[in-house]
Amino acid sequence: MRNPLLVPDLRELIQSGEVAALREFIEDQHPGRTAELIEDLEAEDGDSLFRILLPRDRAEVLSYLDTESQNRIVEAMPPQEAAELLHHMSHDERADLVNRLDEEFVDVVLPHLAQAEREDIRRLASYEPGTAGAVMTTDYVTLPAHITVREALDRLRHEAPDRETIYYCYVVDHNRRLIGFVSLKNLILSRRSALIEDIMQRDVIFGRLDEDQETVARQIDKYDLLALPIIDSTGRLVGIITHDDAMDILRQEQTEDILKFGGVSPDPEADTAPYWQSTVIDVVRRRIKWLLMLFVAENLTYPVLHYYDWMTDNSHFPALVFFLPLLLGTGGNAGSQTVGTIIRGMALGEIKGRDAWKVLLREWLIGLFLGLMLGTVGLLYARYWRGQPWGISSVVGLTLLGICMWANTIGALVPLLARKAGIDPAIISAPFISTLVDATGLVIYFTTAILLLIKMSH
Amino acid sequence: MRNPLLVPDLRELIQSGEVAALREFIEDQHPGRTAELIEDLEAEDGDSLFRILLPRDRAEVLSYLDTESQNRIVEAMPPQEAAELLHHMSHDERADLVNRLDEEFVDVVLPHLAQAEREDIRRLASYEPGTAGAVMTTDYVTLPAHITVREALDRLRHEAPDRETIYYCYVVDHNRRLIGFVSLKNLILSRRSALIEDIMQRDVIFGRLDEDQETVARQIDKYDLLALPIIDSTGRLVGIITHDDAMDILRQEQTEDILKFGGVSPDPEADTAPYWQSTVIDVVRRRIKWLLMLFVAENLTYPVLHYYDWMTDNSHFPALVFFLPLLLGTGGNAGSQTVGTIIRGMALGEIKGRDAWKVLLREWLIGLFLGLMLGTVGLLYARYWRGQPWGISSVVGLTLLGICMWANTIGALVPLLARKAGIDPAIISAPFISTLVDATGLVIYFTTAILLLIKMSH
Repeated sequence: MRNPLLVPDLRELIQSGEVAALREFIEDQHPGRTAELIEDLEAEDGDSLFRILLPRDRAEVLSYLDTESQNRIVEAMPPQEAAELLHHMSHDERADLVNRLDEEFVDVVLPHLAQAEREDIRRLASYEPGTAGAVMTTDYVTLPAHITVREALDRLRHEAPDRETIYYCYVVDHNRRLIGFVSLKNLILSRRSALIEDIMQRDVIFGRLDEDQETVARQIDKYDLLALPIIDSTGRLVGIITHDDAMDILRQEQTEDILKFGGVSPDPEADTAPYWQSTVIDVVRRRIKWLLMLFVAENLTYPVLHYYDWMTDNSHFPALVFFLPLLLGTGGNAGSQTVGTIIRGMALGEIKGRDAWKVLLREWLIGLFLGLMLGTVGLLYARYWRGQPWGISSVVGLTLLGICMWANTIGALVPLLARKAGIDPAIISAPFISTLVDATGLVIYFTTAILLLIKMSH
Repeated sequence: MRNPLLVPDLRELIQSGEVAALREFIEDQHPGRTAELIEDLEAEDGDSLFRILLPRDRAEVLSYLDTESQNRIVEAMPPQEAAELLHHMSHDERADLVNRLDEEFVDVVLPHLAQAEREDIRRLASYEPGTAGAVMTTDYVTLPAHITVREALDRLRHEAPDRETIYYCYVVDHNRRLIGFVSLKNLILSRRSALIEDIMQRDVIFGRLDEDQETVARQIDKYDLLALPIIDSTGRLVGIITHDDAMDILRQEQTEDILKFGGVSPDPEADTAPYWQSTVIDVVRRRIKWLLMLFVAENLTYPVLHYYDWMTDNSHFPALVFFLPLLLGTGGNAGSQTVGTIIRGMALGEIKGRDAWKVLLREWLIGLFLGLMLGTVGLLYARYWRGQPWGISSVVGLTLLGICMWANTIGALVPLLARKAGIDPAIISAPFISTLVDATGLVIYFTTAILLLIKMSH
């Protein structure tokens, strides 16, 4: 409940049917706020508030409602009204909504729309999810190259109410091929009699219909664009992707990195599946892949321990085992920290390919410092808290030093190698590094123990 | 190298001093592309290309260069030229640049700027990093309420060249208090004789000077804005934050979640420190905090193992130890997967407070399925690959079942509890969950062993 004070007043106005007062109240605020109010009210009152809105405002407010409320509200409408709402919606959201609605309902509503609109919905709904085509919209402004700025501004004024944005205009030839770009700012600053072809920018940054949605969203981010034009394989302009949709895509993709980092196998089809939309079986299928692979890798710890098993007769073995989870755990933690840092640095473009050696040296050095500190703590901890003799305590301390340097180095090395091999480094998860450190950390531990406790006592 | 074909040609043009041809080539392209070319060229050629640009274009191109190149190029300029460049830059980037430049150089350059500009730089540079004030810009358009649309458009035309955006205009009273908002689209669609106060939206979404940068960026994302006005404590408009800066902020914050998830202590001051800007000592300081805390937590594994140490006389103990890293590692991996999924679901707003029980049940169920599969694999693996007797193999299988259910449950429970307690759930890292699972997983392992191997054989 984001509007605890407003809601009771509103409920009263709605229930006593004060349409004029309600309209006036809503007119002055951002449609996103109205959507919040509708979500905060009981479903019935919320729906009444929605019905009070004028047709064009309805489309705006609807776009800020969650998908569940959108479906409920639209499916409760008479077909004629639903069609009018669709007519006013932005083209990409309209196609998404139709994709979600009950098919029978859609069959009754669509005939109320013009042929061109029906085709637009069908085309936009047909693109493969995750591609530029699936997220683009078709309500943008195009201009021919030969008209004047004055004529262009007149057109804009005429078309503005139906366009998602009028701030960017794309210049196309008679085959709809994209040949240039002008912003409304350029238009406003230019002489009214100038020709579009003389003021337009010819080197336009664009995306392709079948490109990955993340690739095109990154272009918008990189060049600080309000929208990116999308062309088909013949160079024809077929849509635009707007900055707010790019932001949503990047949020999706970036939070996905957390999923990968947690060790959940990225599934191209499930990319956009919200938490509640994937079934338990889907989730199990996606997670078991990684768990099994890591299980196989982790199983290397068995032969390593087995190899050292002649030491089980040695009186030191039980004491060494007591420290095992502590040492391996700390190594895994240090490795996770490093890989998290490196993946972030790569995602932000701060760590470039040519930096590999510098990164390795730096992380090794950090590992050295961390290892010296933790090693000292570990030595004293084993000696004085756990009452172990100096020999075993030294093994614990030295192992912590060695394991920290090692974990930091491979925590940096593995994502660097992954990127070099053309693999998304974000796939290098914390569990992956922990597992690697487990198997190799054991070697460090027991080798130190053999050198210090057994070889030295002979 | 993003432009392998262009670079040799460009180098030739630069070295033979073909200024006119270069200008023509650059004029037609997005300033971000020109910046890429400059970064792809050798430093000397890149600097020559930059010097060919007209003063206003220089400012645009500079904003797309990385900070290192920006500093190098500006510090090599004569003071007069540097001042002219600063004059044309967007106000927020200008303040950031001045903050980074050599102080002595700045002292020579600033006197070439007008008093108002010097003050603007000083004020913008003075806001606390991480707040709205530190990321806002001051080159926006304000309008008084009493003028007509025609007058407003004339003003815009006049001011546009120096403004970061003219698409959103903010209406202020004579005390600069924010009282309304009109978009350029509204202006274009309204009658030329209408008054601003009659067409403006009065309920403006705004942010406050001292708010966290993430909070204000989220407003821009949520309401699909091009810019968000920022007011001071008295309600006066003092700046705006643009959509492209909001995107940068959100990328920073979201990649930071990976850092937290990797177990690196979030440090409010280091929030915005790029990889190369924090010293090794800074990094060590930030990481050692978590490593020590986790070390303390992990140290619980010692008494647990110690408690079961009467079993060391038992003939089963060495075999049980061989499987220890495998079992604890798998538990940690399952826990990391779950916590990654939950943190993402929370970040996207898909998992709400009221869903807690549903989430726990769901993750426990996923753990049950994963545990049944891994347990079966583990049982067969121990029995047939490692040649262990059925008793020990069963302990391994049952422990995997128990540990998966347990790891999945606490991987969901801990971030849910953190949020309930008002703590950022993103702070619950993969290492944190692995450590928790290590200590408790041991109890599951040895309790199963005692029940199955020892109690049952009596």
